Amino acid sequence: MTTTTLITGISQLATPPTPGPRRGAAMGDLLQIDDAAIAIVGASIDWVGPRQEWTGRTDREIDLQGRAVIPALTDPHTHAVWAGDRYRDFEARTQGASYEAILAAGGGIRSTVRATADAAVTTLTALAAPRVAALVASGAATIEVKSGYGFDPDAELRSLEAIAALRATTAARIMPTLLIHLPPENLADRPAYLRAVCEELIPEAARQGLAAAVDVFIEREAWSPDDAVTIFAAAKMAGLPIKAHVDQFHAIGGVAACVAHGALSVDHLEASGDLEIALLGSSDTIATLLPGVTLHLGITAAPGRRLIDAGAIVAVGTDLNPGSSPLFSTQQAMALAVRLNGLSPAEALTAGTANAAAALGFNDTGALIAGSRADLLVLADQDWRSAVWTLGASPIERLFIAGQEMQQ
Amino acid sequence: MTTTTLITGISQLATPPTPGPRRGAAMGDLLQIDDAAIAIVGASIDWVGPRQEWTGRTDREIDLQGRAVIPALTDPHTHAVWAGDRYRDFEARTQGASYEAILAAGGGIRSTVRATADAAVTTLTALAAPRVAALVASGAATIEVKSGYGFDPDAELRSLEAIAALRATTAARIMPTLLIHLPPENLADRPAYLRAVCEELIPEAARQGLAAAVDVFIEREAWSPDDAVTIFAAAKMAGLPIKAHVDQFHAIGGVAACVAHGALSVDHLEASGDLEIALLGSSDTIATLLPGVTLHLGITAAPGRRLIDAGAIVAVGTDLNPGSSPLFSTQQAMALAVRLNGLSPAEALTAGTANAAAALGFNDTGALIAGSRADLLVLADQDWRSAVWTLGASPIERLFIAGQEMQQ
Repeated sequence: MTTTTLITGISQLATPPTPGPRRGAAMGDLLQIDDAAIAIVGASIDWVGPRQEWTGRTDREIDLQGRAVIPALTDPHTHAVWAGDRYRDFEARTQGASYEAILAAGGGIRSTVRATADAAVTTLTALAAPRVAALVASGAATIEVKSGYGFDPDAELRSLEAIAALRATTAARIMPTLLIHLPPENLADRPAYLRAVCEELIPEAARQGLAAAVDVFIEREAWSPDDAVTIFAAAKMAGLPIKAHVDQFHAIGGVAACVAHGALSVDHLEASGDLEIALLGSSDTIATLLPGVTLHLGITAAPGRRLIDAGAIVAVGTDLNPGSSPLFSTQQAMALAVRLNGLSPAEALTAGTANAAAALGFNDTGALIAGSRADLLVLADQDWRSAVWTLGASPIERLFIAGQEMQQ
Repeated sequence: MTTTTLITGISQLATPPTPGPRRGAAMGDLLQIDDAAIAIVGASIDWVGPRQEWTGRTDREIDLQGRAVIPALTDPHTHAVWAGDRYRDFEARTQGASYEAILAAGGGIRSTVRATADAAVTTLTALAAPRVAALVASGAATIEVKSGYGFDPDAELRSLEAIAALRATTAARIMPTLLIHLPPENLADRPAYLRAVCEELIPEAARQGLAAAVDVFIEREAWSPDDAVTIFAAAKMAGLPIKAHVDQFHAIGGVAACVAHGALSVDHLEASGDLEIALLGSSDTIATLLPGVTLHLGITAAPGRRLIDAGAIVAVGTDLNPGSSPLFSTQQAMALAVRLNGLSPAEALTAGTANAAAALGFNDTGALIAGSRADLLVLADQDWRSAVWTLGASPIERLFIAGQEMQQ
């Protein structure tokens, strides 16, 4: 015998009208219902509509007394597993040190790799758990977490094990991605490392069920588009979808390679130009904005407005990491996409919900419609736009994941 | 018989080394003590030093087990009392509407004035209380709140009454400022309004003890520097210190007028140039940065780096208001000053503590030294720099105001 919980007193319900990815102008079209109700059975939404139209049985009623409700968020891009800190780099940068100078002083990403390599799996999980909890408190019910701070296959597998262990610490759905991040510093070592990645690491991560996707960092100082295509082939052989970090500092052909190979998403895009925007405008590959990097490093913002105008499917995430985006709120990432990337509030909501879920291959969350997971946020305000307008504090009063209310 | 509470287990204590304003290069000099202790008697700090040097009596010990401690923050610039919302303007701006078009459509600041004028004092206080609570949760122990959304002296006095009533809702120290914000739209009405402000409103607010300072909005579409000087004279006659909003969109001589008349602070400064920077570099008038406006509206950032290099006393605040800075965290304002205004982490800490307090005329908070109020923050991290590095979530675990721990 199933129990129906009816959520009432919803001043305003706002949601993408359908699950799955929405592109271009459709990103701004929300379904909006005043004085709405939502019927939940188990982990799923059974019915959504105007309160007065509900005629079913109600076993339990939750009266929100005039608050807005939106879908829970998805954070499609985080590096939440790391050890050590980057405070010294943070200080040095404000004193004018260049990225290269920081690296030369033993700082930068390679210092995070050293600290992460030295940490036990249990330590990595313990360090990551409060970061994930902060993202959940900010409204995320589904969170992607990448490996990538290892310099050898064993270290990468340990990071993936730490991500798997995170599941015991949170009600949020954790999606693990194997990130092929930095190549060996010595050019001569790269071919062997690439072979190990493709022939050992990817198949082993897939075999153990530790990765749901493979991501490649395509950049001048990292992997070339050709390297990425080699890695993509190994990922496909292992049955894993592909993603990539592209155009963060330089547009070197990453978008074209990813679109040609059917990547699930391309993330960053700060240096994307006309060609990349046009490619993404007619592709099913999702363009993921990471505005925390723009705020923290002061680099150019990705052309979110132009991507949407070109017809692209745009998502947004935190990129939570210690070096380039210490942004511990998925809601703030959405709010920043309006300020820094030119999205409208409605487009930002779609980018942080339906499209962010689609960037992880999900269409069961991110829209409040019958049949979806009951992942939803109750806002403190009666107007849904507070979810995108509010800076510096949480506009969220209550959070439900798969029908269960979280204790905040 | 007094009771001594000893806070121990402080991995790192970081504070401006003295209370009161600090200028230029001195803003970057912090007193830092590892394995520190703080002795609190009543509302005040009795002693600060390395744990092992404490030889006094300890009646009660609070062991932080390895967390960093910094002074509690001061928010020297908020407009926390308002009614209505500006969501429609927020949406319109992302769709390219100009400030003028928003005003013409009945939006903009005058819509906030209409809504605030229609609200009862008790309503205004009830609306403002959770906003102040958010600032306190973000680390602020002293908070300035301005009137300014009234269009007549009565409405301004009602806002000041609402601010006074806020004191019953929070342990934070609330400092009320009478803001002479927008002049009448009709130019012909301005002289009479200016006279009413100087001859009725300011003396009455002072007589009733409702204002601790007078602020003027100096801008092309608002008051001229000459108007401001007239208002300053009335404020001085009433015994109130003066402040001003200057150079937000246009530098029209506000800084020079304020410095010449001994203003406590000049706030905004986004359009300040060489002349204004030089004036503030050798003045005791505090230069208050409001980076939330830069983030929300996308306007130029105030030249924080150049002001400090010129020797100015720089403070930072949220400017919390519905139209141009919906930033509900004093800690995030400090964090944004690093990203947007070019401050170092140490300079930002000084700007958000000792200098922010000085911008309200206080030297009893903002530095952890014997004799100061026991206003302090316990961070979740062992490194004080987390207080400035963290974006999107609170790095603060515990907050003490005047020796009392707040329940968060």
